[in-house]
Order: sequence, then structure tokens, then C-alpha cells
Amino acid sequence: MKAVAVFPSRRELALLDRPEPRLASPHDVVLKIRDVGVCGTDKEICRFDYGTPPRGDEFLVLGHEAIAEVVDVGAGVTSMKRGDLVVPTVRRPCMHAHCVPCKSDAQDFCTTGEFAERGIHGAHGFMTEFVAEHATNLRPIARDLADVAVLVEPLTIAEKALLQLHHLQQRLPWACSIESNAKERWCHTVLVLGAGPVGLLGAMAFRAAGYRAFVYSREGQDSEKASIVRAIGAEYVPADDVPVERLRQTLGAIDVVYEAVGASSLAFQAIHQLGPNGVFVFTGVPGRKAPIAVDTDRLMRDLVLKNQVMLGTVNAGKDAFDAAIRDLGQFMIRWPDAVRRLITRHPVADFRALLERGGDGIKNVLTFGDT
Amino acid sequence: MKAVAVFPSRRELALLDRPEPRLASPHDVVLKIRDVGVCGTDKEICRFDYGTPPRGDEFLVLGHEAIAEVVDVGAGVTSMKRGDLVVPTVRRPCMHAHCVPCKSDAQDFCTTGEFAERGIHGAHGFMTEFVAEHATNLRPIARDLADVAVLVEPLTIAEKALLQLHHLQQRLPWACSIESNAKERWCHTVLVLGAGPVGLLGAMAFRAAGYRAFVYSREGQDSEKASIVRAIGAEYVPADDVPVERLRQTLGAIDVVYEAVGASSLAFQAIHQLGPNGVFVFTGVPGRKAPIAVDTDRLMRDLVLKNQVMLGTVNAGKDAFDAAIRDLGQFMIRWPDAVRRLITRHPVADFRALLERGGDGIKNVLTFGDT
Repeated sequence: MKAVAVFPSRRELALLDRPEPRLASPHDVVLKIRDVGVCGTDKEICRFDYGTPPRGDEFLVLGHEAIAEVVDVGAGVTSMKRGDLVVPTVRRPCMHAHCVPCKSDAQDFCTTGEFAERGIHGAHGFMTEFVAEHATNLRPIARDLADVAVLVEPLTIAEKALLQLHHLQQRLPWACSIESNAKERWCHTVLVLGAGPVGLLGAMAFRAAGYRAFVYSREGQDSEKASIVRAIGAEYVPADDVPVERLRQTLGAIDVVYEAVGASSLAFQAIHQLGPNGVFVFTGVPGRKAPIAVDTDRLMRDLVLKNQVMLGTVNAGKDAFDAAIRDLGQFMIRWPDAVRRLITRHPVADFRALLERGGDGIKNVLTFGDT
Repeated sequence: MKAVAVFPSRRELALLDRPEPRLASPHDVVLKIRDVGVCGTDKEICRFDYGTPPRGDEFLVLGHEAIAEVVDVGAGVTSMKRGDLVVPTVRRPCMHAHCVPCKSDAQDFCTTGEFAERGIHGAHGFMTEFVAEHATNLRPIARDLADVAVLVEPLTIAEKALLQLHHLQQRLPWACSIESNAKERWCHTVLVLGAGPVGLLGAMAFRAAGYRAFVYSREGQDSEKASIVRAIGAEYVPADDVPVERLRQTLGAIDVVYEAVGASSLAFQAIHQLGPNGVFVFTGVPGRKAPIAVDTDRLMRDLVLKNQVMLGTVNAGKDAFDAAIRDLGQFMIRWPDAVRRLITRHPVADFRALLERGGDGIKNVLTFGDT
């Protein structure tokens, strides 16, 4: 079967022919992969900035955003059957005796750093025709979400952020007052930085959670991205129209900033736009290229006097996958066209162009299935 | 009656003679002040960096850390009687229609910034013989805490931080595993930056909450502060012995950093010492003097890849006052001598030296009462 893989030691990207996997344990499931999304991390791995083959292998099969069909199940698996559709989670626990999160099935908070991540670090990914996986690492998907469920994994980033935000904001009366609700229709405002797939899916998740959402990005008002933003009832703010330092003045109080660019320069300029009791969510891993000078006195004074929080978040647990699947169902009821416009499918043969140069869609997807 | 006040327009600190207050409403209480603590904010007000008299007055009576005795109660007050001991809260709500926190009695999260703070901003403080106050702004104190209850207000800073921390960390399995508990005795580790009253009271609060606590400060191991740290079962780390950038390596994983210095340079050096899922709590308001250069790429990468949080906190609500009163009772059972050693009392006549130059105690207190 075909598999898209990198050989880091040879700095090579290749389409391999690999043997099909079999059930290795009674708790395993064999999956036929349908769609695999391509993201920034995949491209970084193809630039050999990142990515680790499993122990003993010279190559790493790519891909961590997948939707697949169950084609074989072990004798011990009762939670799913042939023909079911599933989304696999990405991170696998370190299982160190002292790592409480990994032992509690919350490996997205692994404390040792010795987790594996399929398609990224120490375990092969999903850019191949068939994969074997423990049934507990799979989340079931309703059939009517089949053609968009490749978005579940990138959506989990926002869902994990929202789950944490809701825990954190129990520190204060964070509910709407009747007056402000009646007058403004929204309780809270989120500013999403960036209109890539993480930003747009984040805007959808915050809209579904009742937030007023602004999306701030480089494209113009006549761009496809701006049009999708408007389609979900959010407001698009082109960076050319409003300088970062005037965002608060232009948009009003901002309760949450959801950073989805991975550029620390933009993030640390935007941080001063956050309102009282606000939370700045960092989701992107910046390169080592463009730090900016920060007035740490001002940053610390703002954090303290305004009870503000900066929260970093990475990966996602099963709770966030399940929230993403529920929310994606809501998105498809409210904005089916906008959700579909995020996805551009490509045949496997295009893997090199997509991974080395990128595609012209918002979320570019390699299609392994027949559908 | 005597009152210690500043005249910002004349840049003058003075001991005034003022009329005694009376019950202005049936919900008021008249208090005879016993002790008032002096803190960094008071000294800043005496340098005229800060501090606003109430509307219509040229002067501001200082003092926001107080313990007092009820000497008169309005006809509508059923919650307290003459002879009761109380600690007053500091912040008074803005009561804007759209400020949900202030309308919900959580003015420490006021969103308009138009709150008043007794002794600091827009309302007279407690450095005087008698004060009138709404009964709802007073928290009752048991008589056996009378001589240490002046510490309640500075302790609320740590209590508000702990309350927020416990909400936030519900985002992950933050409980101890049996193994690590049996082996290490502690679940979590806090690094307290600074051994002033806020730092030492913070260390006590984290110890009482079951944390292993390190206190990092400039004094040597033979100092009074180091001795108090050891007395509460915490570990003192002199800055001369361990450079900031080696704290993690020396102390092991740090789950919480509790910043109690108000220096952004130390804080932003120490931030890289925080462990996975860690929370850096900022409590101090830095001057505009000493920002440092920060590698924002590195800071953002750490926040994201380690699920870290930076949390700013200011002022405290009634829940934090009540937690501080409960905890102070615990401290007095476990470490009565260490708690008493924090306090150095001075007669009112010493106000100028204390406010303009400072005293030689850890928490310097002006005594108005006879006890």
C-alpha cells in the first residue's frame, strides 16, 4: 500500500510501498484512511525542522489529521464495527509511573515530554491506505459528517482552548448581565488572529459558543477567507484597515484573543488590546526567527491590574475531540457551505507539491479513499 | 481624631485632626481602628506616584490593611454587634449597569476601572482612629486572631491566586498520583519570588494548601526571613547561591511560580524555570523603570508546548478574605511564632518615618488601638 513518508537522515520525502497492517491485538482495529489534512507541522517536517521516526525505522509516515473507515476489528473490540467512520486522536501517552496526566488518559498534558504523536514524533501517521490502531484512540463520527470530518483534528485546538477557558473563567462572574445581553446580543468578544484553518475553525467554535467574533488577517475584504468569516456571522478585519495597536479602540472591549498565526511579533503587539479579565490564548509554535522587543514592565502591569491571563495550549484530549465532533455537527447545520469551502481535496499523487510548496485551498486534503 | 493623610496637590504628608464619623445609614457600623499595616502601595502614594483623594477632598487618608473593633452599629445591622472584631475589604464597586462583576459583589474583577479603593483611590482609608463603613464590607475575625489579623489583607493576594489556580487547573488531572505522593510527600511545588510580607504570606498559604514551597530572595541563609521560611516547613533559596536560570535544574519541576517582588526583570527571567502545565502568578505592579529584553519566540513556544499559563491578579473579593481568615487561623495553630515575627508595631507618631523611609520589620504596622 502507498504511504507518504520522510527520511530525515537523507532529507528525502517519498511515496513508499508498505505492507498492509494486520490486527496485532484483540483490542486493535484496522482502518482504511479516507482523507488526511496537510498542516503547517507537516510542512515543517518536510523541511526537516521537526519530526522523529519511530524507534528502529529510518522513515516517518506523515499525517495526523484523518478520517477513516473501520475495515477490521479485533475480537475484544465491542465499541465499533466494520463500516463505522472514525477520527483518530494523535498523541499517545508516555506511561511513566509519575506522569499523572498520561496515566489518567489526558496525555495532551503529558509532563515528561516523552509522549509519541502519530505522524509527528515517534509513531507513524495516517498518510497511507491502511492503519492499525487501538480502538480507544478512535472517536466515532456520524456518516453525515464524513466529507468534513477531516476538520475535526484542527478544530480540537479551539475546543481544548474553550474547555480551559471555561474552567478558568469560573474565577469571576463571567455570565452575561441581562442588560448587556439585551443591548448587544453577545456576552463576550473574541479576536481571532489569523484566517488559516486554525483561525477560521476557531472563529466557528467561538461563534457556536455564543461569542461575538472578529477575525484579523492580512487578506482583503473581498477575499475568500473574509467571505467565509462573514458567512459564519463573524466580522472580518483586514490588517491593512486597522493597525494592531488600534484594535481595541476600533472593536471595543476584547475578552479573548485567540492567536492562530504562530508569530510572536503579532501576538505580543496584540496583547495590549486585551480587555479586563481577558484571556490571551496562544496556539501557534513560532519559529526562532522574529522575536520582538517587549516592554515587560507594561506587560506585567497590564496582566496584574487587569486580572489578565496568557494561556498556551497544545494538542488535545478525547474530551476536546468529542467537543469538536459535536461542534462540527452544529457548524454543518448553521453554515454547511462555509465549512465545505474550507476543504480542497487533492489526489495522493500531489503529495510532493502540497507538502513542499502548499496548495491553494484553505485546508488542503490528500484523499486516499474512493468516496 | 488623628488621621494620616497625603495632600497630592501640595506633595505633603500630614497628621490631621478630623471629626469622628457617625452612622450615616442604618446599615453602617462605626469602627475603632486597632492596627493598620504599611505596604509598598502606601509608600508609592507618599511619593505621589499614585493615590487619589475622594471627590471634593484635597487629601486622602491612607491605609488599607486594617483590623478594627465595632463600637457602634446601625439599627439595620444584624450580622455584628459592639465589641466584634472585623477586617474591612478594600475595593468598592463601580456599580455601572454593564459591570457584571461589580453588580455580582465581585468588584475585584471590575471591568470599568471606576471602582474606589479605601486608602488608595477615591475613598479615605483606615489610618485613623474611627471609621464608618457598610457592614457588608466587613469580615468577622475571631478574638484569638486579634493580634495578627492585620495580615489578612496582604494574605488575600495569595488566597485569590489559589482560588483562581484551583479553577484553572481543573483543566487537567492535577491531583497527586499515589506513587509520587508516597515518595515525595508533596504533590505540587511552588517557587515564591521575594521574601517580603506578600512572599512570606504566600509561602504560608501554599504550604497550608499542601505545596512544597521554595522562597527565592536576596537575603542570606542566616537572615530573619530565611529563618521564618524554614519555620513554616518551606525551603529558602538565596539568590546568591542559585542564579535564576538554574532554579529548575537545582530545585526540580516547578508547578507554580508566585511572583511577589514587582520586578518584571526577575519575573521574565524566572518564567523559563516553570514546568509543564505550570502557572506563573504575577501579583506585583512594576514601576516603569526596568523592563528587560525577552525572546518572545521562546516565551510563546514554551507557553504553547508546555500548556503553561501566566496569570495576573489584583485586589481580592470576599471569598479571598474569608479564605485568608481561615488560613490565618491554621497558620496560628501550626506556626504561631513565625506569623508573629512578621509583624513589627509602631506608634502613630512614627508615621512619617515608616511611610517615607520604611521600618525595620517585615510587616510594619501603625497601632491606633490600646491593646
